[in-house]
Amino acid sequence: MVRIAVDAMGGDFAPSAIVEGAIRAVRAHVCDVTLVGPEAEIRAELQRLAGADPWPEIPEIDVVDAPDRIEMAEAPIAALRKKPRASIRVATELVAHGRAAAVLSAGHTGATLVSAHAVLGVLSGVERPALAVTIPTRTGAAVLVDAGANVDCVPSHLVQFAIMGTAFARVALGVAAPKIGLLSIGEEPGKGNDLVKETHALLRGSATGYIGNIDARQLFAGTADVIVCDGFTGNIALKVGEGLVEWLAEMLQAERRADLSARLQYGLNYAAHGAAPLLGVNGLVLVGHGRSSAEAVHSGLVAAARLSTSQLTARLADALAGPRAVC
Amino acid sequence: MVRIAVDAMGGDFAPSAIVEGAIRAVRAHVCDVTLVGPEAEIRAELQRLAGADPWPEIPEIDVVDAPDRIEMAEAPIAALRKKPRASIRVATELVAHGRAAAVLSAGHTGATLVSAHAVLGVLSGVERPALAVTIPTRTGAAVLVDAGANVDCVPSHLVQFAIMGTAFARVALGVAAPKIGLLSIGEEPGKGNDLVKETHALLRGSATGYIGNIDARQLFAGTADVIVCDGFTGNIALKVGEGLVEWLAEMLQAERRADLSARLQYGLNYAAHGAAPLLGVNGLVLVGHGRSSAEAVHSGLVAAARLSTSQLTARLADALAGPRAVC
Repeated sequence: MVRIAVDAMGGDFAPSAIVEGAIRAVRAHVCDVTLVGPEAEIRAELQRLAGADPWPEIPEIDVVDAPDRIEMAEAPIAALRKKPRASIRVATELVAHGRAAAVLSAGHTGATLVSAHAVLGVLSGVERPALAVTIPTRTGAAVLVDAGANVDCVPSHLVQFAIMGTAFARVALGVAAPKIGLLSIGEEPGKGNDLVKETHALLRGSATGYIGNIDARQLFAGTADVIVCDGFTGNIALKVGEGLVEWLAEMLQAERRADLSARLQYGLNYAAHGAAPLLGVNGLVLVGHGRSSAEAVHSGLVAAARLSTSQLTARLADALAGPRAVC
Repeated sequence: MVRIAVDAMGGDFAPSAIVEGAIRAVRAHVCDVTLVGPEAEIRAELQRLAGADPWPEIPEIDVVDAPDRIEMAEAPIAALRKKPRASIRVATELVAHGRAAAVLSAGHTGATLVSAHAVLGVLSGVERPALAVTIPTRTGAAVLVDAGANVDCVPSHLVQFAIMGTAFARVALGVAAPKIGLLSIGEEPGKGNDLVKETHALLRGSATGYIGNIDARQLFAGTADVIVCDGFTGNIALKVGEGLVEWLAEMLQAERRADLSARLQYGLNYAAHGAAPLLGVNGLVLVGHGRSSAEAVHSGLVAAARLSTSQLTARLADALAGPRAVC
């Protein structure tokens, strides 16, 4: 059974939602879990939620003490310097030391990124790690990369996102030859900002799966398996969709359409789809949603286990070793 | 009655949808219309659609001959140089010459922007004209600016968008003291790309209506009356919303929820809300949707007439004369 290190203090409903999700995952034989956070607090939650007092020493759920946590309002680099034993950093170190196959955090995304970069380093060929989010489409699902890790990008970053996204899509979507689209404001090659235009020229010349620009209106159309953009644009796109679905769901709920509402909420809440891997660091890092429920944590663990078994990091490393391998 | 010049050849369903909308607007006493396009073709459409053969010479609907049209695939600057008598350019000239109060086009947005810039010039204080789109929100409506005119911006452009958007929101939303938000990926001042961070510093120091960053998830929340962003981001946000609503509407239609479907479609189809004014040129220019139906053209004309009566351009000029006037 793979073991996943979980930042027990990350997320709006931490640690209880995190611990509850971990218990569920372990009981469902999804994976083993190492919960990282203030040990006494975590053990108390384990006892409370599992109804076991005292909490038995079982190998499936381990606790590693990390007294500090990064708050959402903190600047990540300064906060991590000040709190070397923050839960996210300690959890990431478990991966670096081979004591866990992946780390899952629903906490401060910036702190997760910085920890991953500092503790794990980046794969060869990567200038910037990127967040890949799996979004629902009319025909199934697609991968959006970067979903928010890099707010300012240059074209070479996006080319790397395409390479990494392709490798990830093979694993996450089970697509043998993923189609790569570049998110823009029109399908014509001339449409887009300078970043898009320059990236288009690079991708056209190098990536065989590249199908050109994807109009943002087609984001959910299933036209591409991998949708490439800078992290600012990707995050805007996701959040606009999420906010809209929340609103529509409320409208539908008001009309007693709870079923459809749940379906729509599920559709765009990427936590419900598991969690988003950080591509490009030398180890598996998944980012869940800040408002992760126990269910979301559970599905994040499902994703973490699956990606670990799928050898995602090795596939990424292979992909980055040569464009011919994936493009 | 104000007279609106209409690019009869602009839009996917031109000229018939354009002509039909014009007839409806005139019959409803919304405005007088000058249809601009190949005269014989336009007159034939008028006869066909109004059931009048021959079409009577009535002052309410005038036709001005313009033999050429800009196709969607053409590069706007080159196309307009090659076709000086393109319908969009001739229609814009009617405004420059005082023969129409506004020009409405559902055609090539880039060509409309270039025509407007070249024929009308820009207002003092404006570096880049911007498209303002009125979007629905939980509490009513808000103005998004820039919605796609400027794909690459510097902070001073966004400050100008805020100033112009505020003036527009007063007219379009009837809000006396519009709240200005800067579209970003989080509400905290440190969140966003370089453009957002630098613009935040400028707006914080100069615009009294400025309430800070708006998280993209709150785009439809009604938090701000004016939402400022670069045109690439704004266009992505709108198109993601539009594509999502189209998809959801199909899902709902499949469940025979035609009413709600229509409501959702209406919600994000900005053509249905009228048309989007181009802020910052010295005259009123409105951009409708490429897929404008007759209904959309009709409502575009309603908007054009209202904005003309509201003296939007003069208000913009006033607003730009000094930040104290609007901020």
